[in-house]
Amino acid sequence: MNNIISYIEENKNRYVEELSDFLRMESISSSPQHKDETRRCAHWVETHLRDMGIENVEFIETEGHPIIYAEWMGAPGKPTVLLYGHYDVQPVDPIELWTTGPFEPTIRNGDIYARGSTDDKGQVFTHFKSVEAYMKQNGSLPVNLKMVIEGEEEIGSANLEKFVRENKEKLKSDIVLISDTAMYAKGVPTICYGLRGLSYFQIDMTGPNRDLHSGSFGGAVQNPAQGLAEMLASLKDKNGKIRIPGFYEDVRKLTKKEREAFAKLPFKERKYAKQLGVKELFGEKGYSTLERVWARPTFEINGMWSGFTGEGAKTVLPSKAHAKVSMRLVPDQNPNKIARLFKKHIKEITPENVTVELTQMHGAKPALAPIDSLGVQAAAEALKKGFGKKPLLQREGGSIPIVVTFQQFLKTTPVLLGFGLPDDNPHSPDEHFNLDNFHNGIKTSAYFFDTLASMSNGR
Amino acid sequence: MNNIISYIEENKNRYVEELSDFLRMESISSSPQHKDETRRCAHWVETHLRDMGIENVEFIETEGHPIIYAEWMGAPGKPTVLLYGHYDVQPVDPIELWTTGPFEPTIRNGDIYARGSTDDKGQVFTHFKSVEAYMKQNGSLPVNLKMVIEGEEEIGSANLEKFVRENKEKLKSDIVLISDTAMYAKGVPTICYGLRGLSYFQIDMTGPNRDLHSGSFGGAVQNPAQGLAEMLASLKDKNGKIRIPGFYEDVRKLTKKEREAFAKLPFKERKYAKQLGVKELFGEKGYSTLERVWARPTFEINGMWSGFTGEGAKTVLPSKAHAKVSMRLVPDQNPNKIARLFKKHIKEITPENVTVELTQMHGAKPALAPIDSLGVQAAAEALKKGFGKKPLLQREGGSIPIVVTFQQFLKTTPVLLGFGLPDDNPHSPDEHFNLDNFHNGIKTSAYFFDTLASMSNGR
Repeated sequence: MNNIISYIEENKNRYVEELSDFLRMESISSSPQHKDETRRCAHWVETHLRDMGIENVEFIETEGHPIIYAEWMGAPGKPTVLLYGHYDVQPVDPIELWTTGPFEPTIRNGDIYARGSTDDKGQVFTHFKSVEAYMKQNGSLPVNLKMVIEGEEEIGSANLEKFVRENKEKLKSDIVLISDTAMYAKGVPTICYGLRGLSYFQIDMTGPNRDLHSGSFGGAVQNPAQGLAEMLASLKDKNGKIRIPGFYEDVRKLTKKEREAFAKLPFKERKYAKQLGVKELFGEKGYSTLERVWARPTFEINGMWSGFTGEGAKTVLPSKAHAKVSMRLVPDQNPNKIARLFKKHIKEITPENVTVELTQMHGAKPALAPIDSLGVQAAAEALKKGFGKKPLLQREGGSIPIVVTFQQFLKTTPVLLGFGLPDDNPHSPDEHFNLDNFHNGIKTSAYFFDTLASMSNGR
Repeated sequence: MNNIISYIEENKNRYVEELSDFLRMESISSSPQHKDETRRCAHWVETHLRDMGIENVEFIETEGHPIIYAEWMGAPGKPTVLLYGHYDVQPVDPIELWTTGPFEPTIRNGDIYARGSTDDKGQVFTHFKSVEAYMKQNGSLPVNLKMVIEGEEEIGSANLEKFVRENKEKLKSDIVLISDTAMYAKGVPTICYGLRGLSYFQIDMTGPNRDLHSGSFGGAVQNPAQGLAEMLASLKDKNGKIRIPGFYEDVRKLTKKEREAFAKLPFKERKYAKQLGVKELFGEKGYSTLERVWARPTFEINGMWSGFTGEGAKTVLPSKAHAKVSMRLVPDQNPNKIARLFKKHIKEITPENVTVELTQMHGAKPALAPIDSLGVQAAAEALKKGFGKKPLLQREGGSIPIVVTFQQFLKTTPVLLGFGLPDDNPHSPDEHFNLDNFHNGIKTSAYFFDTLASMSNGR
């Protein structure tokens, strides 16, 4: 390993220059005017991978922007890692809020500023550069590697999903490696080993068959806005527990080890509440805030509307009331089962004086890489070496659709090795990426491949 | 009286022709293009009153459309009636849904079709024509009469309110007579002796200081949409009772006589529910539907909005949630006291994890003319003679702002003598007015003045 780490250190500056080249390309996937530039960026990735020493690189056309696929399978018997990343970036507006041009990479205070620096060019580039070090120094990698670098992550990955669905055999792998998230905080390397799933519904409640005058009819019929408020209120108790029978049945309990790991993270309730502008945090009783956000299921109203919502006053008794609601799910909850339980419960609690229609909008499975799985263990070891500090464990409250896609079609274990920081401003002006994290990320990537290979021996 | 009634019968056809002249004028008060035509209509009313034999007619300029004021005070010692009506009409759109032109009065199946036929030209004209009969036959009226015919009812009566406020002495009267409502049903003459009041609020609830990602933050803070749903749900119990402490304190109980009167009205729960498209009616337990709508206070959500309300799904945990709510009030509830109780209660039930701002939008006192008051008794007697059937008693669930204005500034008893029918389509295409009701209305008006005069002797 020493020769690999030295190579990485010796080429530090060139790596930053090459990253700058990568960042200069205006690969805004959502912008039709940037179609050619996005394609040019795909070609740049293709060429760059070849130059690093990966021979088998494919430029795959899709109905949208191209996918770059590459593989190096020279380590028979060793695990196969599927590296996922994306070369496309978000739009740059509001452009006037950028300190320097979004496509003129600039270093200030140890950070490199440019659109895509943390999301995801800078992060995926850490793995390119560790692979280069191996190929240039050893002519080989310690594990087998497949790479899928797409150009449509910022617009929903529709063509990638199709590609994955149609190429299950080609993409077969043991671990999916993704660096497209953030660490818990600067100097706090963390492994994200769990994501929540989702079940999203629209509720349409109908009372009378038309909007009524609330004077002439108020008191005669159930007001669907009131009915909806009562229905939504009834779905949670005072302690924040969700009152859908069977809802918690399959929730995997947090282990003592996990609770200890979360408790170790530097989390300040007061500061967090202040940042969100609330006097008091609130959620399911009996769990810490991080536990609630990462490892407990929730029920949230995402939208709600009924009747008159304009300026002033209108005395209408509305015919309809609507809500968009979603439940975040945790292992081992199944979105299909939860949807079934939800529909059944809503049916049961709908009174005779209104009617309710439910539309299921989204479902996503929760994801969990067991802490003691090979991938997570190797990632922990790699982070310890790369950042000089034992990493802490965290989960994510959100869902990353692409992880679910890989899990669904490839049945692999995801490893989320985030090198970003929470204040990197992805999707906003002055997006940046910390260069310490960039360099340590490259080392971490190198250690990850090495550790994975040696750990797999012992199994 | 016989000579009066004969005169009315003999002039039947001329009365309809004159009403048609009145209806031909396009006095749409909300339309700037119709300003001259609206003014022409005011002049028509002025001239018409003079021609009827009322000498003291004033054409009163306002900042908007003119008010026509008239008085005949030749019955010293007798009650003074203030007749209120309006000569302006609603716009006509959607024009394509009219069977015949809105300003081309046409008679079909005993109804006269035109914009303003029932609201309010046709109704106010019944009183003009009974007054004409008296003046032409007797040269005098049995009571003193003041008339206020405005041109801005359909746009909020702003200038009328000012006029009333500034002319309390001029408008001094014992009874305000208004024919701008509907009877309970064809062939069912009814007296409306009560109107509900109103207290209207906007509730703005704030949770976190910005919209949050419901994945990353769901479980950490109270969702204001959930908080608002819980707050609104808590304001009513399962039996439809409003749970604001002190809310029912001043509610005047329905008398046995009133409950019996309501029960006599031909009301079919099943048919009513079917018309509204609901399987079951709903409201405060222990009261019939008509009692709930007319004589019990209500709490209604008029509007509600929060978070994402567009197409599709967005996983937002909203920062804010809003509702517009109103309470209909009944005698002797005071809107100021109710507003105070509401604000106090909301403050008490607002949890520490959200903040709430209340904006008071409207307040109106409920109105009640005691059943045994002179005006109501005279109206009952007049309806019995005019329509050949003992009238039933009803209240109205809505509030008529102008009634409250008169009550507030003039302290008079309102008499709502509605000759319209529930399916007359005011404010809609094919507005019409039943000609039987027109003719019987004229007679009823004549009987009303006569009965009032003789009844006042006995008091």
